[in-house]
Amino acid sequence: MDTPLTSRFSTVAFLGLGAMGFPMAGHLAARSRETGGRTLVWNRTPGRAEAHAAEFGSVAVTLQEAAGADLIVSCLPTSAEVDEVLDAVLGQLTPGSVWVDCTSGHPDAAPRQRDQLRTAGVRFVDAPVSGGTAAAKSGTLTVMVGGPQVEVEAVRPHLAFAGKLVRVGDTGAGFAVKAVNNALLAVNLWAAGEGLAILGLHGVQLGAALEVINASSGRSNTTENLIPQRVLTREFPATFGLGLLAKDAGIALDMAETARGSAPVIAQVTALYRAAARVIGAQEDHTAALKLIEQMNGVELK
Amino acid sequence: MDTPLTSRFSTVAFLGLGAMGFPMAGHLAARSRETGGRTLVWNRTPGRAEAHAAEFGSVAVTLQEAAGADLIVSCLPTSAEVDEVLDAVLGQLTPGSVWVDCTSGHPDAAPRQRDQLRTAGVRFVDAPVSGGTAAAKSGTLTVMVGGPQVEVEAVRPHLAFAGKLVRVGDTGAGFAVKAVNNALLAVNLWAAGEGLAILGLHGVQLGAALEVINASSGRSNTTENLIPQRVLTREFPATFGLGLLAKDAGIALDMAETARGSAPVIAQVTALYRAAARVIGAQEDHTAALKLIEQMNGVELK
Amino acid sequence: MDTPLTSRFSTVAFLGLGAMGFPMAGHLAARSRETGGRTLVWNRTPGRAEAHAAEFGSVAVTLQEAAGADLIVSCLPTSAEVDEVLDAVLGQLTPGSVWVDCTSGHPDAAPRQRDQLRTAGVRFVDAPVSGGTAAAKSGTLTVMVGGPQVEVEAVRPHLAFAGKLVRVGDTGAGFAVKAVNNALLAVNLWAAGEGLAILGLHGVQLGAALEVINASSGRSNTTENLIPQRVLTREFPATFGLGLLAKDAGIALDMAETARGSAPVIAQVTALYRAAARVIGAQEDHTAALKLIEQMNGVELK
Amino acid sequence: MDTPLTSRFSTVAFLGLGAMGFPMAGHLAARSRETGGRTLVWNRTPGRAEAHAAEFGSVAVTLQEAAGADLIVSCLPTSAEVDEVLDAVLGQLTPGSVWVDCTSGHPDAAPRQRDQLRTAGVRFVDAPVSGGTAAAKSGTLTVMVGGPQVEVEAVRPHLAFAGKLVRVGDTGAGFAVKAVNNALLAVNLWAAGEGLAILGLHGVQLGAALEVINASSGRSNTTENLIPQRVLTREFPATFGLGLLAKDAGIALDMAETARGSAPVIAQVTALYRAAARVIGAQEDHTAALKLIEQMNGVELK
Repeated sequence: MDTPLTSRFSTVAFLGLGAMGFPMAGHLAARSRETGGRTLVWNRTPGRAEAHAAEFGSVAVTLQEAAGADLIVSCLPTSAEVDEVLDAVLGQLTPGSVWVDCTSGHPDAAPRQRDQLRTAGVRFVDAPVSGGTAAAKSGTLTVMVGGPQVEVEAVRPHLAFAGKLVRVGDTGAGFAVKAVNNALLAVNLWAAGEGLAILGLHGVQLGAALEVINASSGRSNTTENLIPQRVLTREFPATFGLGLLAKDAGIALDMAETARGSAPVIAQVTALYRAAARVIGAQEDHTAALKLIEQMNGVELK
Repeated sequence: MDTPLTSRFSTVAFLGLGAMGFPMAGHLAARSRETGGRTLVWNRTPGRAEAHAAEFGSVAVTLQEAAGADLIVSCLPTSAEVDEVLDAVLGQLTPGSVWVDCTSGHPDAAPRQRDQLRTAGVRFVDAPVSGGTAAAKSGTLTVMVGGPQVEVEAVRPHLAFAGKLVRVGDTGAGFAVKAVNNALLAVNLWAAGEGLAILGLHGVQLGAALEVINASSGRSNTTENLIPQRVLTREFPATFGLGLLAKDAGIALDMAETARGSAPVIAQVTALYRAAARVIGAQEDHTAALKLIEQMNGVELK
Repeated sequence: MDTPLTSRFSTVAFLGLGAMGFPMAGHLAARSRETGGRTLVWNRTPGRAEAHAAEFGSVAVTLQEAAGADLIVSCLPTSAEVDEVLDAVLGQLTPGSVWVDCTSGHPDAAPRQRDQLRTAGVRFVDAPVSGGTAAAKSGTLTVMVGGPQVEVEAVRPHLAFAGKLVRVGDTGAGFAVKAVNNALLAVNLWAAGEGLAILGLHGVQLGAALEVINASSGRSNTTENLIPQRVLTREFPATFGLGLLAKDAGIALDMAETARGSAPVIAQVTALYRAAARVIGAQEDHTAALKLIEQMNGVELK
Repeated sequence: MDTPLTSRFSTVAFLGLGAMGFPMAGHLAARSRETGGRTLVWNRTPGRAEAHAAEFGSVAVTLQEAAGADLIVSCLPTSAEVDEVLDAVLGQLTPGSVWVDCTSGHPDAAPRQRDQLRTAGVRFVDAPVSGGTAAAKSGTLTVMVGGPQVEVEAVRPHLAFAGKLVRVGDTGAGFAVKAVNNALLAVNLWAAGEGLAILGLHGVQLGAALEVINASSGRSNTTENLIPQRVLTREFPATFGLGLLAKDAGIALDMAETARGSAPVIAQVTALYRAAARVIGAQEDHTAALKLIEQMNGVELK
């Protein structure tokens, strides 16, 4: 029988203070101040945790200290890093606690991680987020959650960075929806880049074209927000890496393969982002993938 | 020297009363009643024109009678049908008048049609529309217009079906932007279908997944509107044919080829819509392309 | 230290008597008769092993009896079946023996299987084959082998079904080359199908077209052999299943993903074979994938 | 009624002395010497024609002098250049003569060119060639011919550069088969590049891999000849330009679109060659397209 779920989450630990995790943990810390709880923060490079403590009143701790929390929230680059951290702290975890993984993880990792945590009496919920650094800062992230209903409801009030939180299914379903969401982001962004390149080659003014498309059937988040803000401005601010988007699209593709499904467009686009990560740089902003389209067409999107 | 542009457009003729043209011409007729002008309507099958006259107070006429109008608006399946009609009436046109083509035409056709009309002292403006039958009925279509500024401004007040009208460039630019917009529609729709098929194969509830995606970075007009309204409902109402969307994407692809551009994703997706038009049916609604994805994956999107 | 490699392979066991394995094991049995050794054969459905014994003078055995051989050769649908069999017999294996896996396996499985076998003092060599049932019957298969040089040389003389045997690298390299070879087969076959469909739509006689292509730069094994023999004849003899070819192409794609490589065409084609396996049937001959192309184009390749 | 076809072709003119045309015209000149006829040669840059005369005993002439020949053979970059030349000489042509166009032309151009020549009493046969500069030099080109049987037979004995000549259908069929052949070349070459890149990323020795693939089902002209000779050697000798191969694949794609066919792989590959022509250079050898694959994968094919 499973260890009973704790009824209180007075100590929360946040693991991974990257571009997303840093402001997300800030919202948890603000909530703790209101409720009289504590927010512990850990990062691989400790200076980042200390900066967080200074800015948000959280407590910078070692990984072993973080392990004792009632609620652990992780936000790391991939499921592989989650596995490493999980292996390192498995013996120090508190029975009855819950581990909420906000990483854009792999659906295959979720049941494995859940099983491993169960041996320590700990629950696992996959809860990746969407909205980028802007929504992370404003605490309006969309959270897509996989796991048993009761556990999702238990942690729901504590995820203070969420603007919208939807349980999309059982363990792994959150990762699955996130992977597909990001695959759609990748496809829509790439296609918009191709379309604008075609128009640019024919001398059409791209700003006017986008204005019309955004009032028409071809519009998407990428034509409405990303391209006007990041591409046409030539700013390409690196808030979400090209390599990570390629990884996420690859997870969706992997899900197709596992189920013997057929997703030829997602397959093609994943490969093109892999190419862009090589040619343009995996650390560049994901919108910089369109620089590869520019090279492929001899035209600048501006 | 060009024939001076007429300063009044008291008689307007609308050619092509299809699913889009019928309500569009209705808005022209309503405007004519307000301004004391006349709206003539012509359709290949005359019964449709008579029905329009009965419903909107327009005047059903022959093609030759329509040719004498001050402003001609055409809305036909492809540029080939426009060429046919144009050849048939070239001798009857009124010098100083303007021909506004709302067809989703080919950018290569526009300069040719403009040159041909100039021999009759008539201007040509390409002005395709987006928004579907709903926006056609409500008079809120987005119109993307190509042509000289002065001619665009001359006709702008008379296109009563427009919610938004943007001049995107010179002759042909309207067709170009429309083709690219529809290519993006095609890609975004297809990719969303693949993504949902993957999730369906993994047992994720598609309604919940769409709710989350529509609050996330992967959202597009297709996930927000088309798929919830037409696909998950299994209704697939045939308002815009699969074959016509394939044709439009093909125009974008053709534009890429003409400019020696590279648009690998639009290229693949065009081919997949051609396949869907064969396997599912060119007359089916464009969203029925996702039935091919269902067959490819052995899963139903519902 | 590793158990010394046996210097003799007098008892050989063959696991998996499918369309390929059955005749391959026949060549091992013939060799055994010449050298005074024994060939044991095992199949999941025992009747097939008994038929082999009757036809080739091999000895039909249980899996546990087969496990004691000096040389084990397996030829199963995927690495998953090899894992199952390996788990079942690990305790019964003979130290110093070698396991040669002719399955079209996954490169990731090879080092894992090698490590597992090492605990039992057994070597592992990956040695997938190409040439189809015809070359399996004639004993002229191409064998691509991965593993340490000394082990490859030790087993080389005993693989009597080989027409050509090349060591392509260390453990897993055989599987890797096989996966890529089959991915190329898949692409070349699909592309030829598309090309012939285009010509068919334009009324060109396909036999004459193939004759010319096969004397030109576009020729491949698929235009020279598979399409004239299997497609234009409308025979599609099921010697190598469509589902298995999709699986193999998927392994190549997986290898690309693992290495963060970019293979957009192999990615697309893998997805199209997955689609064909759903629409046409995974058990159909791999050349029947072209029936999906026929549906996509409304044309028959004959 | 058509002008009767001439029964003798004592004067032959060759238009276009490029990498292919130069040696092709050499074979015509050698044949003329045997038969007592004359071979006239013309090139846009006259020095090239004079060099041909010096080397092969042909006669360097102006375009107008060439126009009077009994048999005109043209070999130009695209149908557009053929149109230009044809327009320039239409009035000087000899009724009863035949124009054989060995350009890799567009199937849509052929009936138009045939109709135009008929007004001058001249026949048109499309007869593109395959085999590259090596076969052009050795006189063993494969010629794929479209046109009426009687005209094809009339010119057959005079095309001294042919190793194999097949009539594949009516006017335009030669161009069609050539476009598809080259599209297959493009796909097979690109896929082989991807496959080798995958193997290279996994540390497999590419020479050994090719040796095995060339004895296996994945082999093609590109793995057997082009890649070992041009890519692994890092020579990439520019005998057939990347831009021209992209153009040819584009013709095949255009044929698919015209017939509302679906060729998703040829569509993607055409776009990738267009990209390679931009990034690597349209004038580079067609095999240099694989340098783009190298960039996309961060690996060198050697």
